[in-house]
Amino acid sequence: MRIGILTAGGDCPGINAAIRGVAKTAIVNYQMQVYGISSGFQGLLENSYFRMDEFHLSGLLTLGGTILGTSREKPFKKTKDNKQTIDKPELIRKNYKKLQLDCLVCIGGNGTMNTAYLLSKEGLNIIGIPKTIDNDIWGTDLSFGFDSALTIATEAIDRLHTTANSHKRTMVIEVMGHHAGWLALYSGIAGGGDVILIPEIGYNMDVITKYLKKRDNNLKPYTIIVVAEGIDCPKNISASSYIAQELHKQSGHEIRETKLGYIQRGGAPSPMDRILATRFGAHATSLIAEQKFGRMVNLKDNNISSLSLKEVAGRLNKVPLDFKLIINAKQMGTCFGTD
Amino acid sequence: MRIGILTAGGDCPGINAAIRGVAKTAIVNYQMQVYGISSGFQGLLENSYFRMDEFHLSGLLTLGGTILGTSREKPFKKTKDNKQTIDKPELIRKNYKKLQLDCLVCIGGNGTMNTAYLLSKEGLNIIGIPKTIDNDIWGTDLSFGFDSALTIATEAIDRLHTTANSHKRTMVIEVMGHHAGWLALYSGIAGGGDVILIPEIGYNMDVITKYLKKRDNNLKPYTIIVVAEGIDCPKNISASSYIAQELHKQSGHEIRETKLGYIQRGGAPSPMDRILATRFGAHATSLIAEQKFGRMVNLKDNNISSLSLKEVAGRLNKVPLDFKLIINAKQMGTCFGTD
Amino acid sequence: MRIGILTAGGDCPGINAAIRGVAKTAIVNYQMQVYGISSGFQGLLENSYFRMDEFHLSGLLTLGGTILGTSREKPFKKTKDNKQTIDKPELIRKNYKKLQLDCLVCIGGNGTMNTAYLLSKEGLNIIGIPKTIDNDIWGTDLSFGFDSALTIATEAIDRLHTTANSHKRTMVIEVMGHHAGWLALYSGIAGGGDVILIPEIGYNMDVITKYLKKRDNNLKPYTIIVVAEGIDCPKNISASSYIAQELHKQSGHEIRETKLGYIQRGGAPSPMDRILATRFGAHATSLIAEQKFGRMVNLKDNNISSLSLKEVAGRLNKVPLDFKLIINAKQMGTCFGTD
Amino acid sequence: MRIGILTAGGDCPGINAAIRGVAKTAIVNYQMQVYGISSGFQGLLENSYFRMDEFHLSGLLTLGGTILGTSREKPFKKTKDNKQTIDKPELIRKNYKKLQLDCLVCIGGNGTMNTAYLLSKEGLNIIGIPKTIDNDIWGTDLSFGFDSALTIATEAIDRLHTTANSHKRTMVIEVMGHHAGWLALYSGIAGGGDVILIPEIGYNMDVITKYLKKRDNNLKPYTIIVVAEGIDCPKNISASSYIAQELHKQSGHEIRETKLGYIQRGGAPSPMDRILATRFGAHATSLIAEQKFGRMVNLKDNNISSLSLKEVAGRLNKVPLDFKLIINAKQMGTCFGTD
Repeated sequence: MRIGILTAGGDCPGINAAIRGVAKTAIVNYQMQVYGISSGFQGLLENSYFRMDEFHLSGLLTLGGTILGTSREKPFKKTKDNKQTIDKPELIRKNYKKLQLDCLVCIGGNGTMNTAYLLSKEGLNIIGIPKTIDNDIWGTDLSFGFDSALTIATEAIDRLHTTANSHKRTMVIEVMGHHAGWLALYSGIAGGGDVILIPEIGYNMDVITKYLKKRDNNLKPYTIIVVAEGIDCPKNISASSYIAQELHKQSGHEIRETKLGYIQRGGAPSPMDRILATRFGAHATSLIAEQKFGRMVNLKDNNISSLSLKEVAGRLNKVPLDFKLIINAKQMGTCFGTD
Repeated sequence: MRIGILTAGGDCPGINAAIRGVAKTAIVNYQMQVYGISSGFQGLLENSYFRMDEFHLSGLLTLGGTILGTSREKPFKKTKDNKQTIDKPELIRKNYKKLQLDCLVCIGGNGTMNTAYLLSKEGLNIIGIPKTIDNDIWGTDLSFGFDSALTIATEAIDRLHTTANSHKRTMVIEVMGHHAGWLALYSGIAGGGDVILIPEIGYNMDVITKYLKKRDNNLKPYTIIVVAEGIDCPKNISASSYIAQELHKQSGHEIRETKLGYIQRGGAPSPMDRILATRFGAHATSLIAEQKFGRMVNLKDNNISSLSLKEVAGRLNKVPLDFKLIINAKQMGTCFGTD
Repeated sequence: MRIGILTAGGDCPGINAAIRGVAKTAIVNYQMQVYGISSGFQGLLENSYFRMDEFHLSGLLTLGGTILGTSREKPFKKTKDNKQTIDKPELIRKNYKKLQLDCLVCIGGNGTMNTAYLLSKEGLNIIGIPKTIDNDIWGTDLSFGFDSALTIATEAIDRLHTTANSHKRTMVIEVMGHHAGWLALYSGIAGGGDVILIPEIGYNMDVITKYLKKRDNNLKPYTIIVVAEGIDCPKNISASSYIAQELHKQSGHEIRETKLGYIQRGGAPSPMDRILATRFGAHATSLIAEQKFGRMVNLKDNNISSLSLKEVAGRLNKVPLDFKLIINAKQMGTCFGTD
Repeated sequence: MRIGILTAGGDCPGINAAIRGVAKTAIVNYQMQVYGISSGFQGLLENSYFRMDEFHLSGLLTLGGTILGTSREKPFKKTKDNKQTIDKPELIRKNYKKLQLDCLVCIGGNGTMNTAYLLSKEGLNIIGIPKTIDNDIWGTDLSFGFDSALTIATEAIDRLHTTANSHKRTMVIEVMGHHAGWLALYSGIAGGGDVILIPEIGYNMDVITKYLKKRDNNLKPYTIIVVAEGIDCPKNISASSYIAQELHKQSGHEIRETKLGYIQRGGAPSPMDRILATRFGAHATSLIAEQKFGRMVNLKDNNISSLSLKEVAGRLNKVPLDFKLIINAKQMGTCFGTD
């Protein structure tokens, strides 16, 4: 058999480990031919690829980013005037045939799983592998990238504690998460955040102000506020700037802001992410060997399995409001911006 | 209500986070009184304890080890001549009453869960919280401490790669795990180990020697071997020394050995361990509030719940031989010492 | 003898190690009495202090921030209308006498060394200990805090490489350094930055644009730009935003920006910073024992010694334009925004 | 010009950064041709080398180990019977000519600098670059590799504190350093070691035992002992095992031992090591351009310069007994095994 691998959307730690997992299993165990496609779906449009041998896989387990490159190319996206100059899905189908692929492995996030589903509807054999530091892909308990980003974000919050304590300050830190607050929630708990704001839970600024006042009254020397970038706030300002600015207005506190940014997505994957990515990759290849296509590999109740891409497409994995960790955190005094 | 907390057995990252989880939930949410008992069960024998306030919990989330101290005291263990000078279980029961405890939270490993079960049989209200870097406690998918130890062990293996490659050497690294090979297996996979030896799988030295020869023939420049301390080997030699010595004899390879030792158990817990420990702690307190005693909190299929200490006592969580990760690893070329 | 210690200005890793160095030497070797003064010079104005015993020093070596707290209080600073309601220097002198101090150890940056000098002119016995992540204190080859900040900044740049490479992007990262570019220069070199902009070297945007174009022509897949916060740019915009915005205009490149912020100053000190802080602290105490006052401890040509605070006050340690490291970096192809 | 680079002796972090420093300066600034020679002096004996282009240098700054490989080959070492079958120095000279080299850059430790000196006496143009985690090369204030090893060793000692404290134990950790105790001394200070034993200072076991007893009397809960591998002890036992065993005998303390081993030498170099290695490399090339041969680059009083290999050969950089850091540490209560 002959398979192609591409990586699309934003990069994250563990993608290379997943590429290695797919390719090593394919080459060593199944004697498949493996092609690495450059820059996501753009590489399929431009016929840009190379044959991958075991040699290419050395060192991939620990390497951040993706050696295949990635792009934001979305072949099914309509242009504004609804007139496409080229039929991209058709071109992808043609190049898939030309490359004589038996299957295309798409490693990516929500957008990529959507495209993967649409391509499988067009008749291509597709396997999706979920990657995201946001953990917002529906159908899997965990995606690789999340644990690495959590480690980076938590370490950053750890650092803020010493400065906040020395200066008796309120500090706001913004972590990634447009639609889902997993990273803010987990890094907030792990980093001992006093206030945690996530997109799933609407916050009330008065509640937070009152909470800060209570901390002042109880002589708590400082406060750490962890916010997801996707919380409700005006468009022309970042989440952390908005919260810092409003809280300063309402509380008079001297407030300092940190926007963690791109470093959350870079560098070597954590051990757990390497293992998850490896398992996802190996399982993807075994699905191909069994000719089970149109599926995304997942982690469910501690087992690696898969589900139909159809189920995944168009859905999001958000933090459930009744998540026990939130209840626990509230019991321990954490403020989520609600009463 | 009035609760006691003790920590017993070997220390590991996350114990303090669990203490904080129990105590903060107890104090903030349930207005319970909390007593920290010193040095494990020894503290109960010697009436050594102190009242814990919220003040004591500051900084515990990230602190390695246990602020309560720990010991190897096993109150139900028979002395050799089977004649106890004091009836330790009786003394513990007496001091438990004297302290007017409504429940005793025991944070520890297998031995501690065993003692916890026996104390609950004696009529004490007990909640167990599992901690171990070996991940060998029955009844929970994961114990805190494991992810931190995995991170340390994997980082160490990462380091060995550069030296092994520069010198074209075979290197053996021994990680903890007396009865269960979880840490060796996971760090071996995450660290790209070529050979992984765990207690659950009997190894054949000839198979390993043949594997090394094959690598030589394929011009692989070096080999990393990860072994659990508990694999089958003579008693007067460590696992890594034995494997290094035997492989040198059989293959002629220049082999270097590293025994990772105590650093695997020290330092700040990983973010995931902090979260797991916090959740275990908070859930333990909620069980107490509901007067559900004689139970160990656990993680099962992604949920925090609990099971009877009776089920846990005397059992071990070993790596199952049909574990899919092992099958995956074999397909990718990893050697487990078997054909 | 009886000495006071205070920490003023922005916090940085190693301050606690320096406090420990002063106090442990004073207590163990010289049997001095040591008082910790809270929140910098504010604590001297408000008579806020506590007696430090050996017990207080446990754990300080690795702890970030300052257990004494700090403030931006500058007792010699004139108010705008030039009318002080209270004579702060006089009040400090009074409280210094009241506390019966034989010497006041001031740990801080440039502003603090200035105040320290002015207090010594007022007749107080003062020893200064330089701390700053900017390394901009005159008279010492190195201040503690710098190596820790360098480690954090370099790790962040390392992370950006994988993302920049995956997305073929130009990325700008802003590190601290208002007046001196040491941190940007060192982290830029250590992190393999392609462009490094520091306050000491005026940059020309056209030169940078031309440099980017040359990289495009040479098919370099991505570019990392490291800027100090203090480079010449409009006041209402951060250095990294300005550079990103201007380069986007001129080159059309998709440019991403990271402002590292407060995490550069937090967390445990690096080993070298712990050692430097310890040595500074111990030497400060030995100066006190020898009754040599009005001096700042320093590192000069690998030796710990001291110089007069008078020499230090009002001066800055900037990167010299003929610094060999800059010449070396230019020879290796790094762009400093100049021809 | 045409230059060769080889790396010999034990690997350490920063070697690849130094290779990059030499080659990038040579290629970009001086348009020299650069040859990488495999496996140290063995590569010169076997004519094993490859042409290095800028392309080969990508990623080297952060990569541990040496991409050229290394070996323990010592071409001037006499065999036992004093009869060489081949004249290795002559063969090296021949191959040096054959490769038409104008200079050979030798990156290595003491042994390598010795060989480098002997080769320069044979008429070859040689530049030496010092690398060692032991910091025992004469003529330079610092060698790269040391700061990285210090970071690893200190982190390990940090971890031991939490375990030692939880179990109230005495723990012994052995770090590298055959002839010089720099690493033990610096990591011992940075890690807060209570006892530090180095080869330069003869220790008395009774003094250490007495010191432990004093700590017991003062209710210090635990003790950390840092030893260099090269301290005086029987040959058939490691330094840490010997100290642990003897102290157990004399004090009755339960003592735990950790031998840090190879992980001290692996992994990515610290930022300061990357910078030092880069500067050494760049300066080596500028010496070549100026035709100044027979020299070793060094760091002296904060400046990169060089000295004659003749001065370096056969000498060792040991910790001076009057080193102020030792005096400071003693004043703060650290025990060096002497009165």
